[in-house]
Amino acid sequence: MSGILVKNVNVVTMQGHDRIISDAEIAIDKGKIIGVGPVGTVKPDFRPDRLIDGRGFVAMPGLINCHTHAAMTLLRGYADDLPLMHWLSEKIWPLEAKLEPGDIYWGSLLCCLEMIKSGTTTFADMYFHMPEVARAVEKSGIRACLSRGLIGVGPEAETALEQSKQFVQDWHGAANGRIITMLGPHAPYTCPPDYLKKVMALADQLAVGIHIHLAESKTEIEDITRDYNKSPVKLMLDTGVLERRVLAAHCVHLTDEDIDILAEKGVGVAHNPESNMKLASGIAPVYKMLKKGVKVGLGTDGAASNNNLDMIEEMRSASLLQKVACMDPVVLPSYETLKMATCGGAGILGLENEVGMLKEGMKADIILLNFHKPHLYPKHDLIAHMVYSAQSADVETVLIDGQVVMENRRVLTIDEEEVLSKVQEIAERLVGKK
Amino acid sequence: MSGILVKNVNVVTMQGHDRIISDAEIAIDKGKIIGVGPVGTVKPDFRPDRLIDGRGFVAMPGLINCHTHAAMTLLRGYADDLPLMHWLSEKIWPLEAKLEPGDIYWGSLLCCLEMIKSGTTTFADMYFHMPEVARAVEKSGIRACLSRGLIGVGPEAETALEQSKQFVQDWHGAANGRIITMLGPHAPYTCPPDYLKKVMALADQLAVGIHIHLAESKTEIEDITRDYNKSPVKLMLDTGVLERRVLAAHCVHLTDEDIDILAEKGVGVAHNPESNMKLASGIAPVYKMLKKGVKVGLGTDGAASNNNLDMIEEMRSASLLQKVACMDPVVLPSYETLKMATCGGAGILGLENEVGMLKEGMKADIILLNFHKPHLYPKHDLIAHMVYSAQSADVETVLIDGQVVMENRRVLTIDEEEVLSKVQEIAERLVGKK
Ligand SMILES: [Zn+2]
Ligand SMILES: [Zn+2]
Repeated sequence: MSGILVKNVNVVTMQGHDRIISDAEIAIDKGKIIGVGPVGTVKPDFRPDRLIDGRGFVAMPGLINCHTHAAMTLLRGYADDLPLMHWLSEKIWPLEAKLEPGDIYWGSLLCCLEMIKSGTTTFADMYFHMPEVARAVEKSGIRACLSRGLIGVGPEAETALEQSKQFVQDWHGAANGRIITMLGPHAPYTCPPDYLKKVMALADQLAVGIHIHLAESKTEIEDITRDYNKSPVKLMLDTGVLERRVLAAHCVHLTDEDIDILAEKGVGVAHNPESNMKLASGIAPVYKMLKKGVKVGLGTDGAASNNNLDMIEEMRSASLLQKVACMDPVVLPSYETLKMATCGGAGILGLENEVGMLKEGMKADIILLNFHKPHLYPKHDLIAHMVYSAQSADVETVLIDGQVVMENRRVLTIDEEEVLSKVQEIAERLVGKK
Repeated sequence: MSGILVKNVNVVTMQGHDRIISDAEIAIDKGKIIGVGPVGTVKPDFRPDRLIDGRGFVAMPGLINCHTHAAMTLLRGYADDLPLMHWLSEKIWPLEAKLEPGDIYWGSLLCCLEMIKSGTTTFADMYFHMPEVARAVEKSGIRACLSRGLIGVGPEAETALEQSKQFVQDWHGAANGRIITMLGPHAPYTCPPDYLKKVMALADQLAVGIHIHLAESKTEIEDITRDYNKSPVKLMLDTGVLERRVLAAHCVHLTDEDIDILAEKGVGVAHNPESNMKLASGIAPVYKMLKKGVKVGLGTDGAASNNNLDMIEEMRSASLLQKVACMDPVVLPSYETLKMATCGGAGILGLENEVGMLKEGMKADIILLNFHKPHLYPKHDLIAHMVYSAQSADVETVLIDGQVVMENRRVLTIDEEEVLSKVQEIAERLVGKK
């Protein structure tokens, strides 16, 4: 099957010049959008293999989750409401130490399943045993930007670099181009400048970007300032990291100068409001960043600190949190937040010409939400409804790369029952129940 | 039908001594819970008319929404992201002025429909044309505490008191006791002390409580301090309002003395985190209040400032927001928040002996959530999952007063299609599209 025609649908293209096109049509051929617009846009000689009736639905670009750790779904609900270091050192790290490559595969597949079911079509991941994550991405039909996490201190530092290189060579561009890769130095406080220089050299050699945690917690700011007498952002600037494509997760604690640097260097920021709230990291100055021209996307972070991968909810949290943080109900209006979760996210992953908008020539990553629901009535403003009222369970149909991967909420690429029983089995082994 | 037996279910009773009872059973007869506990709890001679298989489900007390304005569903998405006074005076109030009694009925029915579908079984409402709200409550099968909103200045002040009296006399205890009533003086800045004294006298005469907005915005604090040289809470204390049962919505801006007063007087606070965020009112000091013994429940506020009535999401926002506000990931752990949304809410409505726990002798307001979902796997901690991962669409079965009002997500008491088409028609009339 190749040609698909979606008819009678309300379309949110995210192209900017329109907000909603009512009663529109979308034509898809060979994985790409070949036409989108009001009735009559699609050439009459287009003969689709398949027709999707969009009546009562809203079609929009698939959501883009710019920062997660896919297999941490395995740790969902294992430890919550604890002080940060206790949570990490007594709960998360000991369990992660027990993870086998096969566990990562199943945990990542659970992540892909949950994401597809909540309308996410692309995600950016940083973890370990990355070939397993790539296999899950390939299998599920989702799109992803994958990075092997790198810790620059300790015995694994060099091996991890070697593995990263191998991973990029093996998987960059794989799965019909659905998989791209970056290098993943974990954070300024785990990757000293000398190590970052090796990472940068490798990134340049492989022509890939860098995915890093940056300015997440007050402790990080204090530690880096103590050791280097500058902020983490300034340290990254001075080390040269920001001269390449950088995806920086969190960016919660920033000086005005830091924000200027992020804007000037075109750094892509992955904002993770729910993780920042749950771990009490702080509130990122998103409104200020956007005003100064920083490119901001949205992410969920891993399921252990969220505890779901629901990007619709994450949009809502982003807007609501920024309003109360600024004490101004006007900041981050719904359309701005929708941009962060779609075309904004695409931009910071370097996919701005491929996904994040419904536009002729772009890849067909499209979600259809059923708006015939009590919580979406009356229909005063479909964009507001999308951000402030909708639920991930409203997503009924998902196309990625022109393929229908979910239909009537049934994911076609993954055996859901198998995944649920496998991850339960793995979780019980990890916590020692068997 | 009278007797119902739920079997093989994971039960969260909220009784405190247990968190989860696995493979439990719940027996319901004549609207009440007659047994709840592990297999063998229910007497073998109980012959239910109906058996519900709870395998894969979690049963818990229905959620209690302590503050809303039901018919404001009609304004959902009509105006967002605006400065507060502009939003009220140019958008909300002009539209509210056009509302007819019949509109209130349909808007309230939409509210009841959405609430039942998201696991809420009791709500506390303040609005106008309250007999219409009561009719919607009666029809839908939900439980509610209803208050006619009172503005103490202007020509309607006395009429509204008369209508309140009539409303309490007509509806208190109606619908098999599912409806209770309170008086609803809107706020300290709309109800001067002299008017509040009339409200208090009527409340005492009718033996009902008082539902009021309190300390919601900085502007309120400034205005009341300017006019009375004391905080809104202190003003209510000095006026005598706090000598009776009081349900105080918001309580965002409080001094330490205010918190002591609320605790000492046993005032019930309805915390509305998402509305407070969206309107940029501020962040209520919930952790501090709970620590000092203030009784706190949870609410959504009206759908125009939220923009949904989803209490599961509201729980999540409550915990996450409080953690980041206190910069401490330990505050408002999942079980504490679940208490606010169930037994805590029941307590502040005066329903602590009727609902909010699954306990022998209490009314059978029970929700069953399908936990066999990707975002609820693996099953490390069902309580954490409930607050941090679950969605309202996971609620599949709802019992209120022992009656099954929703089954497999189909609400049995309301014609969903009729409600959706009516509210759409009303909304279009209100905004002048026809
Ligand atoms: Zn992370
Ligand atoms: Zn209110």
